[in-house]
Amino acid sequence: MRKSVAGKLRKALELSFQHNRRFLSSSHSRFLSSTPVVFDSATSTSMADSSSSSHASPPLSLQTINPKVLKCEYAVRGEIVTLAQRLQQELQEKPGSHPFDEILYCNIGNPQSLGQQPITFFREVLALCDHPAILDKSETQGLFSADAIERAWQILDQIPGRATGAYSHSQGIKGLRDTIAAGIEARDGYPANPNDIFLTDGASPAVHMMMQLLIRSEKDGILCPIPQYPLYSASIALHGGTLVPYYLDEASGWGLEILELKKQLEEAKSKGISVRALVVINPGNPTGQVVAEGNQRDIVEFCKQEGLVLLADEVYQENVYVPEKEFHSFKKVSRSMGYGEDDIALVSFQSVSKGYYGECGKRGGYMEVTGFSADIREQIYKVASVNLCSNISGQILASLVMSPPKVGDESYESYRAERDGILSSLARRAKTLEDAFNNLEGITCNKAEGAMYLFPRINLPQKAIKAAEAVKEAPDAFYCHRLLNATGIVFVPGSGFGQAPGTWHFRCTILPQEDKIPAIVSRLTDFHKGFMDEFRD
Amino acid sequence: MRKSVAGKLRKALELSFQHNRRFLSSSHSRFLSSTPVVFDSATSTSMADSSSSSHASPPLSLQTINPKVLKCEYAVRGEIVTLAQRLQQELQEKPGSHPFDEILYCNIGNPQSLGQQPITFFREVLALCDHPAILDKSETQGLFSADAIERAWQILDQIPGRATGAYSHSQGIKGLRDTIAAGIEARDGYPANPNDIFLTDGASPAVHMMMQLLIRSEKDGILCPIPQYPLYSASIALHGGTLVPYYLDEASGWGLEILELKKQLEEAKSKGISVRALVVINPGNPTGQVVAEGNQRDIVEFCKQEGLVLLADEVYQENVYVPEKEFHSFKKVSRSMGYGEDDIALVSFQSVSKGYYGECGKRGGYMEVTGFSADIREQIYKVASVNLCSNISGQILASLVMSPPKVGDESYESYRAERDGILSSLARRAKTLEDAFNNLEGITCNKAEGAMYLFPRINLPQKAIKAAEAVKEAPDAFYCHRLLNATGIVFVPGSGFGQAPGTWHFRCTILPQEDKIPAIVSRLTDFHKGFMDEFRD
Repeated sequence: MRKSVAGKLRKALELSFQHNRRFLSSSHSRFLSSTPVVFDSATSTSMADSSSSSHASPPLSLQTINPKVLKCEYAVRGEIVTLAQRLQQELQEKPGSHPFDEILYCNIGNPQSLGQQPITFFREVLALCDHPAILDKSETQGLFSADAIERAWQILDQIPGRATGAYSHSQGIKGLRDTIAAGIEARDGYPANPNDIFLTDGASPAVHMMMQLLIRSEKDGILCPIPQYPLYSASIALHGGTLVPYYLDEASGWGLEILELKKQLEEAKSKGISVRALVVINPGNPTGQVVAEGNQRDIVEFCKQEGLVLLADEVYQENVYVPEKEFHSFKKVSRSMGYGEDDIALVSFQSVSKGYYGECGKRGGYMEVTGFSADIREQIYKVASVNLCSNISGQILASLVMSPPKVGDESYESYRAERDGILSSLARRAKTLEDAFNNLEGITCNKAEGAMYLFPRINLPQKAIKAAEAVKEAPDAFYCHRLLNATGIVFVPGSGFGQAPGTWHFRCTILPQEDKIPAIVSRLTDFHKGFMDEFRD
Repeated sequence: MRKSVAGKLRKALELSFQHNRRFLSSSHSRFLSSTPVVFDSATSTSMADSSSSSHASPPLSLQTINPKVLKCEYAVRGEIVTLAQRLQQELQEKPGSHPFDEILYCNIGNPQSLGQQPITFFREVLALCDHPAILDKSETQGLFSADAIERAWQILDQIPGRATGAYSHSQGIKGLRDTIAAGIEARDGYPANPNDIFLTDGASPAVHMMMQLLIRSEKDGILCPIPQYPLYSASIALHGGTLVPYYLDEASGWGLEILELKKQLEEAKSKGISVRALVVINPGNPTGQVVAEGNQRDIVEFCKQEGLVLLADEVYQENVYVPEKEFHSFKKVSRSMGYGEDDIALVSFQSVSKGYYGECGKRGGYMEVTGFSADIREQIYKVASVNLCSNISGQILASLVMSPPKVGDESYESYRAERDGILSSLARRAKTLEDAFNNLEGITCNKAEGAMYLFPRINLPQKAIKAAEAVKEAPDAFYCHRLLNATGIVFVPGSGFGQAPGTWHFRCTILPQEDKIPAIVSRLTDFHKGFMDEFRD
């Protein structure tokens, strides 16, 4: 009975909503001024009869919301993904309605959504910390490894009152920050201070926090690589700053040239932009390169000389697939150059979403903030405090990824097998997909040295570019749309990341499970041949 | 060996950091201009010898960061809490160093930090979802209740690929939103649409998201109650808007008068402020009142007439302690008035941090967004997408608090006992503390009808006000500081929440466990007598 009333009510609401939409569209012109719509109580109906004025316009329109929100774009979950979700629903409701039987999501670095399994030890510890009441029960010994039980006790002892359900210190639980700092020290061979660590719900909120601190107006610029992960362009837009692009050199494997940095910095200065920070994503997203240590030194030197904050996105630090390259944190590189706290302001972002763990849904991460004065750090602390703290499970997981099981621990062998299995499989997938792209007419693809992406370049025929223009699409979006509709494969058009003018790319993750890769390669190859035949000049 | 090197390096860093601080302070004047400090590469040292220029100034100072960050304040974790943490450390390091043996935190709504235990059923489900590998093992039957196991399976089946480690839909997992919408329908008796639900990492990020959407400049105003929970003032400051205050009437139990709303709205308009939204916190924080249904109708009517978005902070919806009052959601009230989607733009905020569950560390919550046009909702979706999704454990918990065990479920009796035990104890604590305050000279205290706070008013002697002025403190902060130093009790000064000019208050949570309450009352009573004796005019 109740359901049916609810259904009718919902229907009525939908109808009136549609009605309102029409009204909005017919009276669109009144919203075009920049003055916000505020009803004047003198001209509006009195309280008594207001129930009849049910078509009063809603207080918000696209013309009256914050224009920074309007300006912000985020292609990784943009229009093509919405289309993919619609197709998926159509496939569920009407199997056989499309020329493919599943959507192959290669658009986002979300490993577990594609079947990657979590690391057992990490999940054991999380479960025990979620329900500590079972820790001293005998059945627990049979279900959980001994070192997971021990680690859970250690972590609980670090939490005041063992209260995993309490807000923590605004920077995160001190004991967990100690563990993370020790992990950074072990990684870098240089000291790390737990008071420099700010635990966050993934790396994204940390990036926002720094942009909020740095950007005062559109006259403040942030140097960002192009192509870039669109979190940066989105965050800069939301905070009202200016993205100052520097182009990665595709010909040299997405190399980062200091001369290009200098040139773009000078050009920004000449336009009256105060450039405040440099973003480096290493390993690269969407470009997959691992920056060479010599190059990192030049970048550190450049930031020091120019007084820029170095924002180091190091969330893919565990994802390196080629023997000739190694990950070095920017902190290690700067310390190895003899630079300390008073030489360079450096923020390193880390996340539990990437690496071999891929725990995106846990929203854990941290930033290590060095080279800021005490009064600036107080401001960062204050902003962190307004959101109280990041989620405790994510905090715990961040400490676990920085201190996984060690040789001799009960879980070590299984942990190592899980980790190495994932990383070696990712390396194989990267190579297979890279080769497949390079075998296609008009496509060239740099190696994925690291991270989770390939960013192949496609030399589109003029006829395809014209066809895209005719439907008012960017040529790479046109290609990706056609690919999705024909094969169910979801790539993100390069225009969502930025690319050198006149070039076209797309981003493809290396994350589908290995047994899916042959199907992706063959569907892509067939589609691409047909596309080129259709549009060859 | 490594430790010792690390220790020496840290010491060296600390020294150079101190040196840099001195340098900063002696050259303070160069940072006073509003021009950001950007080094010109022509005047800075060349790359070759830059390692000797170790005293290059850091790129940031208080004068060059975003002034909105500087302006933001958040008293709940402000200066008095920092002092409390320092005292706690001193007590640990040197027991007996203060005239009390523990800090009694009454500053923040963080129940589990003070010993409140989590609801068993909720934690069972969370643990099982964190480590689903144990779900079909025989030992699990002995450790977990049958309905927790069943619920975990249900939830896993709602998650694509059962991947609790994957990013979800940007609004949250669809199946969980279905459950939440059903919970809202059961609560209100009116339909709720799962597509209106945006799951968030607690209520705070949801509030930020709405402020980001609504505020374009300092010419945009948000009507907020005074006293208010300082998340609102902080978020408005961070987004560069204007807080338009409306004063709650202490004499009528923190009543919300429509005439006052109208007056403040008109005054803001006359100053050229476009008021865009009205915040109502119900039950009230820090004031603990429960808004009467008739009053809610007037508020809905006011928002409709004035074209304001109604931002309803309903995170304390389970925390009502008096038989004569009941919580009604603003959505229910507006629907009961016949108002639907096209009549009123309404956002309801809910959190897993409050209620009887008090799961602050899980950072779960949602907002229900109704009455916005499709294109505005797309913008909210886009902003949510930039942060990918909220944490999955928090999402699961948000669904659990909106659909707890039901009569007949294995866990129902224990769940009900835990819930009722917590709520009835909170009611007793509220009454005991209220009575204690009202017994003190010069203090009057309204009832905590709901929420987790009392906000007593203190009529301070002139001599105390003069003494506060002499040390450049607000009189209520002066009182709270003295209280903390003498007793270890942490209250937040009323000035952190706003209060009618010339009145002084403080916020005290009702959260210390019942066995602590007598000590709080007696220490407070003794301190207060001494304070009044010292400063009586």
